Amino acid sequence: MATEESRTVQEAYPMMGGDGLYSYAKNSTQQRKATDSAKEPIKKAIAEKLGKEILQSSKTFRIADLGCSVGPNTFFAAQNILEAVESKYKSEGLNSQIPDFQVFFSDHTSNDFNLLFTSLPQDRRYYVAGVPGSFHGRLFPKNSLHFVHSSYAIHWLSRAPKEVVNKNSPAWNKGRIHYSNSGDEVVLAYKAQYDKDVQQFLQARAQEIVYGGLMVLIVPGIPNGTHHSQSLPSMNLELLGSCLMDLARKGMVSEEKVDSFNLPIYNMSPQELEAAVERNGCFSVEGVEYLPLVVPNVSGESKINGQVLASHLRAAMEGIIKQHFGEEILDLIFDSYRKKIEENSSIFNFGKAVHFFIILKRISENQLS
Amino acid sequence: MATEESRTVQEAYPMMGGDGLYSYAKNSTQQRKATDSAKEPIKKAIAEKLGKEILQSSKTFRIADLGCSVGPNTFFAAQNILEAVESKYKSEGLNSQIPDFQVFFSDHTSNDFNLLFTSLPQDRRYYVAGVPGSFHGRLFPKNSLHFVHSSYAIHWLSRAPKEVVNKNSPAWNKGRIHYSNSGDEVVLAYKAQYDKDVQQFLQARAQEIVYGGLMVLIVPGIPNGTHHSQSLPSMNLELLGSCLMDLARKGMVSEEKVDSFNLPIYNMSPQELEAAVERNGCFSVEGVEYLPLVVPNVSGESKINGQVLASHLRAAMEGIIKQHFGEEILDLIFDSYRKKIEENSSIFNFGKAVHFFIILKRISENQLS
Repeated sequence: MATEESRTVQEAYPMMGGDGLYSYAKNSTQQRKATDSAKEPIKKAIAEKLGKEILQSSKTFRIADLGCSVGPNTFFAAQNILEAVESKYKSEGLNSQIPDFQVFFSDHTSNDFNLLFTSLPQDRRYYVAGVPGSFHGRLFPKNSLHFVHSSYAIHWLSRAPKEVVNKNSPAWNKGRIHYSNSGDEVVLAYKAQYDKDVQQFLQARAQEIVYGGLMVLIVPGIPNGTHHSQSLPSMNLELLGSCLMDLARKGMVSEEKVDSFNLPIYNMSPQELEAAVERNGCFSVEGVEYLPLVVPNVSGESKINGQVLASHLRAAMEGIIKQHFGEEILDLIFDSYRKKIEENSSIFNFGKAVHFFIILKRISENQLS
Repeated sequence: MATEESRTVQEAYPMMGGDGLYSYAKNSTQQRKATDSAKEPIKKAIAEKLGKEILQSSKTFRIADLGCSVGPNTFFAAQNILEAVESKYKSEGLNSQIPDFQVFFSDHTSNDFNLLFTSLPQDRRYYVAGVPGSFHGRLFPKNSLHFVHSSYAIHWLSRAPKEVVNKNSPAWNKGRIHYSNSGDEVVLAYKAQYDKDVQQFLQARAQEIVYGGLMVLIVPGIPNGTHHSQSLPSMNLELLGSCLMDLARKGMVSEEKVDSFNLPIYNMSPQELEAAVERNGCFSVEGVEYLPLVVPNVSGESKINGQVLASHLRAAMEGIIKQHFGEEILDLIFDSYRKKIEENSSIFNFGKAVHFFIILKRISENQLS
């Protein structure tokens, strides 16, 4: 059974819990903007792509948000999906058949579910369940979900590729924590890990989602055809890496410690994700749309706010960095990053990034189980 | 919708979280013994009472444990139910139709779900979900559960009856925190609260459990016909109350503070629960069985262990007492209780208690929604 499968992949790292200064709950406005801008496209997808047979056969309409973190973005997404599905029932003349809704909020076991549960909207119109575990394995019973949503999550790999921290590998990524400055071997190792992970993700979802069910993935990625050296998200992570190397040069962490650390993140292009979906064979691509970017060069802000960028990055990265380097140097690292991003704000001018979302539909009986 | 319903009842208090000295996880051996002794009766109930139509119509077999706390007892119960249902499929010749299992672990929102999720058995053969909320309201979609289990939970009321803390009521329970030493008015107020709560519980479950589904409730109660003054569980709580009054006399807490505190617990008899089920009308009583008691007078231990009893009581009561009286006096209260229970161990000789379990089957379409 697939719960075993999920244990073979290494658990990655949840967003920062709690509601403190660097919490994800208080530092996810970028994700919030993406959730907002995905609102209308999701509504449209549900109106146009969700078949009447799904509506009529569902006694309970089950929604899952994978990589939900602690809220509040996941609650906005759930509410939006629920309203769109209700509208769809009404527009099909099925008002009397609107079912109960059950929303499964899922993230790693180490996610702060206690905070998630105490933050639930009081006026929700759905039943709630929290589901702990890695989305690279099975999380739900067969054919039990009608709509899956995942926002800012599938760029997290199940682990950094082994080769990049192996001294004897040509893909050894010495002195770096990501790949914008790395050789092709490093990027290929990341790409191979991504290929494996995204297939596990799609295979698990293919089993869990009912025939005709929809999946919307919102992804911080790179434009089609971008060379890895031009990847803005990777450049940004490399700045963080250079802060760690600065600390190593000052003797505050060992260089080996930095060498053995690579971020399990892969920023894919829409084409790469579409190719993965095609390879999997259980979903049709019903649409790909681009969301407005909120990075400074695009939003027209003349000066970047290093503190805001540092707080956002810290909310996402604190867990994984603390685990590897310890708690003591966290303030130092992110303060150093704040300065460095202000000095290097030009990356926002030449680095390339897109935030996109893809709509998938479960099209055939699963042949993969 | 019933999620609103659930907000109108006051949230009660979860067992002590974490895994420290007074945690529920480490102080629930009594409940564990009950879980163990309920194992065979539950297997038998599933073998004899679960209809073939349920087995054949379930694509996913959904189990809920209500009042699950943080484990490990809830995991033993889930595993036992799963094995019994699998056996039932096999004995009916339906081996090829054994579905996926999904287990919903439910408790108050303030339950430590983070601990629950990190404690999950590695070798589980079911999909997991955590469901926060009060079981006095709706927690699940309509007709979505096949088996509901609740152990040592439904004796918790949604709140203490208002009258018992109202100076102007004939049911004012001055100087006491429970009812074994109280007048009939107090007991009637508790009984009225119980009647209301148990009907809300049954009404919610009647909507959630599929026709033919089973519910097993394990209850720490009193024998049929027991006068409240002879209730061992209440006597035990009254000892705790007298510790609080001692502190009031010493000026360490105000007497008003004690007067305004009553425990939201009602220890019912099997007959009282059966009568409630009959009034509800949606379930048949398929069996009532008594579990071996683990209190000292019955288990044959000649001397009680005050420390063990104090730790057990603290695991269950610390949350609610801390909320009302503050954290400072916790050690004092439970140390005082330890002495008092050793001095008053005779209550185990004349006080009356039974631990029983009742098997219910959802028998008719719900007319209550």
